[in-house]
Amino acid sequence: MYRTHTCGELNLRHSGNEVTLSGWVQRSRDHGGMTFIDLRDRYGITQLVFDMETNGELCREARKLGREFVIRVEGTVRERSNKNPKMATGDIEIDVRMLWVLNASLLPPFTIEDETDGGEELRMKFRYLDLRRNKMKKNLELRHRMAGEIRKYLDKQSFIEIETPVMIKSTPEGARDFVVPSRMNQGEFYALPQSPQIFKQLLMVAGYDRYFQIVKCFRDEDLRADRQPEFTQVDCEMSFAGQEDVLNTFEGLAKHLFQEIKNIDFNGPFPRITFKDAMDRYGTDKPDIRFRMEITELKEFTRGHNFQVFDDAEYVGAICAENCAGYTRKQIDKLTDFVKRPQIGAKGMVWVKYNEDGTIKSSVDKFYDEAALHKWIGACGARQGDLVLIMAGERIATQEALSELRLEMGRQLDLVMEGDFAPLWVVDFPLFEWDQETGRFYAKHHPFTSPRPEDIALLDSDPASVRANAYDLVINGVEIGGGSVRIHNKDLQGKMFEKLGFTHEQAKEQFGFLMEAFRYGAPPHAGVAFGFDRWVAVFAGSDSIRDVIAFPKNNSGRDLMIDSPSSISHEQLQELRLKIDDTGNDK
Amino acid sequence: MYRTHTCGELNLRHSGNEVTLSGWVQRSRDHGGMTFIDLRDRYGITQLVFDMETNGELCREARKLGREFVIRVEGTVRERSNKNPKMATGDIEIDVRMLWVLNASLLPPFTIEDETDGGEELRMKFRYLDLRRNKMKKNLELRHRMAGEIRKYLDKQSFIEIETPVMIKSTPEGARDFVVPSRMNQGEFYALPQSPQIFKQLLMVAGYDRYFQIVKCFRDEDLRADRQPEFTQVDCEMSFAGQEDVLNTFEGLAKHLFQEIKNIDFNGPFPRITFKDAMDRYGTDKPDIRFRMEITELKEFTRGHNFQVFDDAEYVGAICAENCAGYTRKQIDKLTDFVKRPQIGAKGMVWVKYNEDGTIKSSVDKFYDEAALHKWIGACGARQGDLVLIMAGERIATQEALSELRLEMGRQLDLVMEGDFAPLWVVDFPLFEWDQETGRFYAKHHPFTSPRPEDIALLDSDPASVRANAYDLVINGVEIGGGSVRIHNKDLQGKMFEKLGFTHEQAKEQFGFLMEAFRYGAPPHAGVAFGFDRWVAVFAGSDSIRDVIAFPKNNSGRDLMIDSPSSISHEQLQELRLKIDDTGNDK
Repeated sequence: MYRTHTCGELNLRHSGNEVTLSGWVQRSRDHGGMTFIDLRDRYGITQLVFDMETNGELCREARKLGREFVIRVEGTVRERSNKNPKMATGDIEIDVRMLWVLNASLLPPFTIEDETDGGEELRMKFRYLDLRRNKMKKNLELRHRMAGEIRKYLDKQSFIEIETPVMIKSTPEGARDFVVPSRMNQGEFYALPQSPQIFKQLLMVAGYDRYFQIVKCFRDEDLRADRQPEFTQVDCEMSFAGQEDVLNTFEGLAKHLFQEIKNIDFNGPFPRITFKDAMDRYGTDKPDIRFRMEITELKEFTRGHNFQVFDDAEYVGAICAENCAGYTRKQIDKLTDFVKRPQIGAKGMVWVKYNEDGTIKSSVDKFYDEAALHKWIGACGARQGDLVLIMAGERIATQEALSELRLEMGRQLDLVMEGDFAPLWVVDFPLFEWDQETGRFYAKHHPFTSPRPEDIALLDSDPASVRANAYDLVINGVEIGGGSVRIHNKDLQGKMFEKLGFTHEQAKEQFGFLMEAFRYGAPPHAGVAFGFDRWVAVFAGSDSIRDVIAFPKNNSGRDLMIDSPSSISHEQLQELRLKIDDTGNDK
Repeated sequence: MYRTHTCGELNLRHSGNEVTLSGWVQRSRDHGGMTFIDLRDRYGITQLVFDMETNGELCREARKLGREFVIRVEGTVRERSNKNPKMATGDIEIDVRMLWVLNASLLPPFTIEDETDGGEELRMKFRYLDLRRNKMKKNLELRHRMAGEIRKYLDKQSFIEIETPVMIKSTPEGARDFVVPSRMNQGEFYALPQSPQIFKQLLMVAGYDRYFQIVKCFRDEDLRADRQPEFTQVDCEMSFAGQEDVLNTFEGLAKHLFQEIKNIDFNGPFPRITFKDAMDRYGTDKPDIRFRMEITELKEFTRGHNFQVFDDAEYVGAICAENCAGYTRKQIDKLTDFVKRPQIGAKGMVWVKYNEDGTIKSSVDKFYDEAALHKWIGACGARQGDLVLIMAGERIATQEALSELRLEMGRQLDLVMEGDFAPLWVVDFPLFEWDQETGRFYAKHHPFTSPRPEDIALLDSDPASVRANAYDLVINGVEIGGGSVRIHNKDLQGKMFEKLGFTHEQAKEQFGFLMEAFRYGAPPHAGVAFGFDRWVAVFAGSDSIRDVIAFPKNNSGRDLMIDSPSSISHEQLQELRLKIDDTGNDK
């Protein structure tokens, strides 16, 4: 037997017990005639003691053990003279009688501690060592518990988890598919699902009125910081349900998770905000409402002062940073640099200081007198001591820049309390998004999203203004999930495809089976999908989903540990009837 | 609101209540002045009544509804005059006041009933209709419940579910990999995992001593009846654990499932049998022990009678079919045809009838007198009235043929009670399997399986006789799962690769990261993986895993519903730098 107990469970009640433990050597200290070893496993750390006086040979063996050696020991639990109240096992130690080395270890390339000295790349290459760190262990345990609570809640609500296929069909709407060549059907390919969207709708047609699945999805995108080519989705769909049903059911899920995992009790309903309001007030469709500092539109107050920049701008907006009137020139310059970074791309920033003494100073004093500036200050609700920051330009782009500036000020002013959570629903998204480059509309959510019934008449006359029955759940400025009421009517679905520029043939080829299914009694249905990695990261207080994925890929889609992707054998290529085409030009 | 209740929950206690229901028209009957409609949803069927006398217009509307129309109704619950005790809702009906058609339906191509008239191909093409059938619904609900109980049990045992990646690296040992071309790393490929084997071993190195995952796995094999290119595995691994720990833990899991799902309480431990005994007694490593009819080796009793067939045979074995001495010539000929089928491939079959009156008659009377045949009968434990069936030839092939014959006799004689379950462990598998074609040893389980310590010395001298610390769980003749104690020692792992014919370089290229990981303190570990689809099928009493998979593929790996795999666009191929090679010869 390798162990009678784990390294996390022994305490004074076990005093005098003979125990066997197994684990890793976390650290080792020699104190005069004694050697102390911290033995670590998944459950904790237990102190082992070797006494040179009573058993010199064993103690000498113990002194040869390096960090991360795997050992098994037998000994007696005894009270520590020097207790450590911070550790669950801090009251006891093991007086070791026997020691076996189960496996040796080379010196790890970085320290296995809460704060490691390993860089990102090294940690990824030796992920199995990185995962030994307490922080990673806590994250993966959190992930496990969250998945468990999601399943528990949904099961109680009569949802049934149904596995949908991973090898499906390429549908080139949306992001790029990963494809899988078929050996048995040569020249043909499967695709990995970007989501089980079509299958869950087919399950609704099949009568499984409450479906969910925690499932891997795949997108062949150029990776940004918080994207992974494979990611996990909590995918859900309901029949005989509208937007209100979905929002209530999944607000219940979110509250259940807050309660069970974070021990936070949300009393009232989550706030709801329309997409338009979110853009106007926060400059983003995923506002972080843990702090206010809302955006104020100032265009009407800026006219008629011959300030060309504002007069030419479609939009002028401001945020008010409380108690920042004392910002130095240098601090303000830094903020200007911040908004001018290519990621944000603003041309500049105007500021107004409403000083403690009631005076006003601005970077546009030449154009606007104090009376004019007082109107801005009043609109923004600024008080003496506040700093108003203003940007102008094309509406959406400027709102987005103001949003980034708002978040930056939130960070600088420490407006967010650790452990604070602010969930909300964003609703009434536009149905379509115009793409300048291809000169056509794309589905903002996806092509199966239903327009709001009162906006259907606008589909032909003014598609850009049609609102969708679509909604997002946002927590702390992170889009945790989104969904929509689906179209269940064959004719309306056909109209959508037409508006999206599909010919009848294209629609039929790509989605024919769904259109066909809709001819056999499709119920009204609606659904939502949550980004599980993101949700876990938000609960873990982590900025990167890589911290909550056991074996993530890097920004080039590589797994540095197993060195993948990699070349495959000539025989494999031949069996698949594929050739690598190295004649093409670089794109 | 679409509904106040489901179609499965109303009873006499709701009499007089105003309710709203939504669902599908299962069937419709006109009785004089009344129209009765069975409304179906996932939860059951409720009878709707339309009365021509009180509301002629509505009744005429109802008569227009076709099968599988989706409707919503409002009405009053009332007691039925004609109760149906077989239905949960059989005491009541709905006196309908309002009716909305939510969606029409074409006439389905097959009937949506327990016994359908749809052939396999039609059912697959219209899977969303097939899934409306009660049997399929029960199967998917069973699957959901089994997954839930597996998670509940393992969570209680401190197992943590960790997701391992789906896009990994091709390791051409074992079955063929499905591969995924990488766009960002051109000319390189990911592979879909045949199992998370290597990742779960890395998780053990990382210290997650009890891991599990219910996970999709992929094998590009030529498909047989009960194979799918993607299938679901319950994948498990434990550290600081040996074979006994694994067997006890997962016998506990199996008992939990039997108890919770099938309401069967297994008192004692599951039987265990060695691979060798399983072959000798049942002719297979996955014996169905719901009935006995064990195989008896007869070689020693057949010598010296100049019967060339037996004298030349490496092996002679028999089964005893109780009370079958009365089998006619025709019945016996049919059995002979059965074992001569190419799938079994026996050359013939010898029979001995031990008649009710104590006389003996055999197909080899010319060579064996009654005294000789009595020895056979005695060895087989045959009693008066029994029929002994004998086959001879190469040992393994003949045992396997006898196994098929045994199963066929079990079916003919109805020896298996419906709802009967007989689990057992098969242990002590051989470590290697010799492959005639390539002239090398292959790992019987996989290359990471540990030999039994007492057999390590034989690795060089007699590899074929080395037994592995490997085990299978078998239920009703179906291999539900298998696993092994793993090698955690770098040197022993190196020796295994050598025996399997890997050069040092090949081993390093394919498994280098695992070998490397083993240098940093790998704990002793062992694991098991269960075929989830098969386990659900066995519990569902179904012969085919297709009956417990929502969207299976056919024997050519095609999904007939979505028509996949399919060709992809020229642009997609170009982005991946791939060319279809149509110059090759057919294989």
